[in-house]
Amino acid sequence: MSKQYPLLDHIDLPADLRKLAKSDLPQVSDELRQYLIDQISQCGGHFGSGLGTIELTVALHYVFNTPHDRLVWDVGHQAYPHKILTGRKQQLATVKQKNGLAPFPKRTESEYDTFGVGHSSTSIGAALGMSLGSQICGTERDVVAIIGDGAMTAGMAYEALNHGGELDTNMLVVLNENEMSISPNVGALARMLIKIVSGRTYNRMREKSKRIMRRGSWLWKFMSRWEEHTKGMFVPNTLFEELGFHHLGPIDGHNVELLVEKLEVAKEIKGPKLLHIITKKGKGYKPAEADPIKYHAVGQFNPEDGLPPKSKPSKPSYTEVFGQWICDMARMDNQLVGITPAMREGSGLVEFSKLFPKRYFDVGIAEQHAVTLAAGMACENIKPVVAIYSTFLQRAYDQLIHDVAIQNLDVLFAIDRGGVVGPDGATHAGNLDLSFLRCVPNMMIMAPANENECRQMLYTGYRHEGPAAVRYPRGKGPGEAIMPKMSGLPVGQAERIRKGNHDLAILSFGALLDQAATAAEKLDATLVNMRFIKPIDRQMIEQMAIRHSHIITIEDNVIQGGAGSFVNEILQEMGFQIPVMNLGLPDRFQDHGTREELLKEAGLDANSIIQSAQQFLQQKPDPKKVIPLRS
Amino acid sequence: MSKQYPLLDHIDLPADLRKLAKSDLPQVSDELRQYLIDQISQCGGHFGSGLGTIELTVALHYVFNTPHDRLVWDVGHQAYPHKILTGRKQQLATVKQKNGLAPFPKRTESEYDTFGVGHSSTSIGAALGMSLGSQICGTERDVVAIIGDGAMTAGMAYEALNHGGELDTNMLVVLNENEMSISPNVGALARMLIKIVSGRTYNRMREKSKRIMRRGSWLWKFMSRWEEHTKGMFVPNTLFEELGFHHLGPIDGHNVELLVEKLEVAKEIKGPKLLHIITKKGKGYKPAEADPIKYHAVGQFNPEDGLPPKSKPSKPSYTEVFGQWICDMARMDNQLVGITPAMREGSGLVEFSKLFPKRYFDVGIAEQHAVTLAAGMACENIKPVVAIYSTFLQRAYDQLIHDVAIQNLDVLFAIDRGGVVGPDGATHAGNLDLSFLRCVPNMMIMAPANENECRQMLYTGYRHEGPAAVRYPRGKGPGEAIMPKMSGLPVGQAERIRKGNHDLAILSFGALLDQAATAAEKLDATLVNMRFIKPIDRQMIEQMAIRHSHIITIEDNVIQGGAGSFVNEILQEMGFQIPVMNLGLPDRFQDHGTREELLKEAGLDANSIIQSAQQFLQQKPDPKKVIPLRS
Repeated sequence: MSKQYPLLDHIDLPADLRKLAKSDLPQVSDELRQYLIDQISQCGGHFGSGLGTIELTVALHYVFNTPHDRLVWDVGHQAYPHKILTGRKQQLATVKQKNGLAPFPKRTESEYDTFGVGHSSTSIGAALGMSLGSQICGTERDVVAIIGDGAMTAGMAYEALNHGGELDTNMLVVLNENEMSISPNVGALARMLIKIVSGRTYNRMREKSKRIMRRGSWLWKFMSRWEEHTKGMFVPNTLFEELGFHHLGPIDGHNVELLVEKLEVAKEIKGPKLLHIITKKGKGYKPAEADPIKYHAVGQFNPEDGLPPKSKPSKPSYTEVFGQWICDMARMDNQLVGITPAMREGSGLVEFSKLFPKRYFDVGIAEQHAVTLAAGMACENIKPVVAIYSTFLQRAYDQLIHDVAIQNLDVLFAIDRGGVVGPDGATHAGNLDLSFLRCVPNMMIMAPANENECRQMLYTGYRHEGPAAVRYPRGKGPGEAIMPKMSGLPVGQAERIRKGNHDLAILSFGALLDQAATAAEKLDATLVNMRFIKPIDRQMIEQMAIRHSHIITIEDNVIQGGAGSFVNEILQEMGFQIPVMNLGLPDRFQDHGTREELLKEAGLDANSIIQSAQQFLQQKPDPKKVIPLRS
Repeated sequence: MSKQYPLLDHIDLPADLRKLAKSDLPQVSDELRQYLIDQISQCGGHFGSGLGTIELTVALHYVFNTPHDRLVWDVGHQAYPHKILTGRKQQLATVKQKNGLAPFPKRTESEYDTFGVGHSSTSIGAALGMSLGSQICGTERDVVAIIGDGAMTAGMAYEALNHGGELDTNMLVVLNENEMSISPNVGALARMLIKIVSGRTYNRMREKSKRIMRRGSWLWKFMSRWEEHTKGMFVPNTLFEELGFHHLGPIDGHNVELLVEKLEVAKEIKGPKLLHIITKKGKGYKPAEADPIKYHAVGQFNPEDGLPPKSKPSKPSYTEVFGQWICDMARMDNQLVGITPAMREGSGLVEFSKLFPKRYFDVGIAEQHAVTLAAGMACENIKPVVAIYSTFLQRAYDQLIHDVAIQNLDVLFAIDRGGVVGPDGATHAGNLDLSFLRCVPNMMIMAPANENECRQMLYTGYRHEGPAAVRYPRGKGPGEAIMPKMSGLPVGQAERIRKGNHDLAILSFGALLDQAATAAEKLDATLVNMRFIKPIDRQMIEQMAIRHSHIITIEDNVIQGGAGSFVNEILQEMGFQIPVMNLGLPDRFQDHGTREELLKEAGLDANSIIQSAQQFLQQKPDPKKVIPLRS
């Protein structure tokens, strides 16, 4: 290794980097890029974004006095080079693994990670907070937010720019235009950014025209006044200037010496400022440059050709089940439209977007708008399907309540990545959705136990007149055969899978039915696939409570306010006094790991369920704790 | 009445209005304004916004073929004149009253109300959805969103503009610049809008300069090309043009004939377009023009002088308790900052903003940013207090989870308008917060039962290291004397208020303790003020369950996943089988009415609680439903 990385080997921390001459930085960058390729090819991880920000990372740590100065990385996909330069070089290969490095910046992992991320577009607001906070404390500190053009479509980035432009902090925003977010960029802002780039030629024209204009003094006076009021006139970076930011760039984001130079200039400018750089995702690794979506995040691959280890063909993921369903449904119903907030690939909408381009809406990273747009469409008897990750739906929670549910509008939410997600850590977990959806009136909520049920539930929710959600997990299901024919499930009806003895009924919500089934076999318990979280099957709950002495509820959602909690409410309302054990996810944020590891940690693998159930069944009721019968 | 309103008397529906000559419209506007003043002075309601949009409302219904064409009013404060012109003239005086007109547009109330509102900044997204929806259905239809400048600070408005500018719908956005939202406007966008107005003088200069430039053909070519690329150059309305909207105006929004003319022009333009109008809040009613904040929404008043009926001095509201606390706390701790998303008055921050202007941050209507800004500040050991209404916190739910709770940052949420709110209807209800907050790990959640407890809880939450929320209702409490001295409550400890017989323990969460106390007296029940929803007092719950044969939980939150539901979970976890009755708000959106009416409707007044409790205590346990003791 020492031969390959003569400079990088001597850099453990940014302070080491800062000892080098500026002229060494191109070589540092090359070594850093090679190191990243070598490591990620072995362990997988987010890849293209990091390759695109190698030079920027080197320049930022060179110019700014980190960790005293604050770097706030937006989303954090691009933070691997930052991790390498800030004391975590050796651990990089553990990224995303349980107890390994987190895939995003994380405050508890390093003092260089100033703000935990995972969701997009938070960096400007957070950096503004840090900048104001330091000001109030009387601490001199530079704060830099690094944000991609894709993240600029989110409203909260704009809210923060709008507020920041008004204040006298010295915050610096580095806008990294890499010409794509995860899905191809959409929206007027993206177009505007492209205009800015093409505007570079105008910079030269501007100089020329100024020389001419000086001859006519009235015109010159007029133009000067104009320029003061509309700086965007000659460099058409109007949005940021209008918002009050001093604008620098655009410059080549792969020229590390130029970056250092411009960052040093930016550092000296008072007030809010924005440096616009142009980079290429996947820079320096040909396969990633050619297909940046594929190389956004990768598994292991051969660094020579970029090919992954051979794998056998396998079952479809829930995402693919959804992708197939929406195409089939769209063929049957012209009123169907599909909406995604910049997650075409992740949500399984690639095929749909190609087959039905006029009914496909990628709104960019703009979850709030995705949902309100759907509500507006539903007012015109269009039937929108909003495909969204559970964790990102949090960002459209008000829109779901205020625009969809209160008005009882006919919108279907296809919620992917529900429950434990895994390697992306707490920011991407879908652990809360059953709780935060269940309390919303008018919602129908379903969770499938297998692939075919997912398809039929999507159909059921689609046909239901009113807001409905189907919430399914990341990855693959148990491999149930998918019926091409769609048939609506009876609304609010659970399905009894197995009739056991009278000791125990297991009520399973969603994706953990397989684990529950193993436990039910072992314990000779009755097993119910609840299917609907709302409306919940009261009759089934009643029957189970009458016939059994114990009930266990299982879900891959936090116990707090989740589906099992609903069963408790119903049982109390019906007047049952029966021991219930609620199994589900813990009341803490789970760190990253595989889905299996995290489920096991939460006691939701089959063996743990069996153990919990056995203990539960063996507990002698404490006479003090059981209200005796009065007759 | 017929003498006063010669034209308005003959207008029941917009079709009647459209029969009139354009030259009649100024008189219609005057009559409409007078009618609004007369009515609102009797019944109270949102006032200033409606006065400001009289002419716009008349012009819109005159030019567009409503209800076939869609008018989407943002927020809806300004929709009273719209209601008067669309068949609801006689009912206007019932606004906000139970079974009366809703204070905002509401789909179930009228086919002219195309989209239910209450929260801000949804109109552009909803209108875009309607426009696209009509296009997909092949229906020709004009869709108009009417939005104020204050609402433009919210990210979702920008997300929708960004998306809409990209599409070829004919949506029209009317931007109503009334130079204020509820709180004085903040942010760079507002400043930009002001620039646009001052830019009107430049329009004339532009014409002059163009004439000059034609002489020099190189310059002319250059400037033309420039203008094409940056239309903002000569009319500095750059943001909207950049986003792809054809921009019209600004024009005087109180000139109804000019409005008609421009709307007719706009109607013919293909593609997305924006008409910028300037209006004055409270227009035509001197007291409201002079103090638009005071007259944003009013109670009854004397139309001659604008004075309300005399009222006696009374107890402070919870809002005022918070306002006093934050000033006192800020005096004790320099690290405290207060953040509000444009609700300085509503949240009780007026005094604080005057005393501590450097530590006061009104971020505009931008709830997401308010919370992430707070998170960023907390990273620098500043102690932010985010003052926010329960219903608006829904819009910052992801930021609360992703930016604050996951990182366990020290942010205090002062949540006003928790639980039943009342006259503003379902969009403003705080019925869900205990449920959607309780499932979030790391949160401390408190709900005070009286004014002094509110103060002490704010202090407790402030001192707690980590995210904390104090959630209190609209209006006044029971009148408990407020201790100036602040003392921290023991974390996670409930307070037993009354020791009763062994039949019943009432566990009360938050503001309904008074009702619960009346019931406890009547029933000789034990009464506990739970204080903390999270961490919940397990020990107290255990003691209560051991000592009593029945438990009732009471909260002004939906039962689904609420605080009572937490008690059920705990009792099951501890192995109790004891009858519990969860009292709380229903699983449906409550229409508007007074807080008292809505609480009674939900069975949460003292009498209803007593009745429910008596039934509960008298229920003979069904032997089939109670698991017998095994020994």
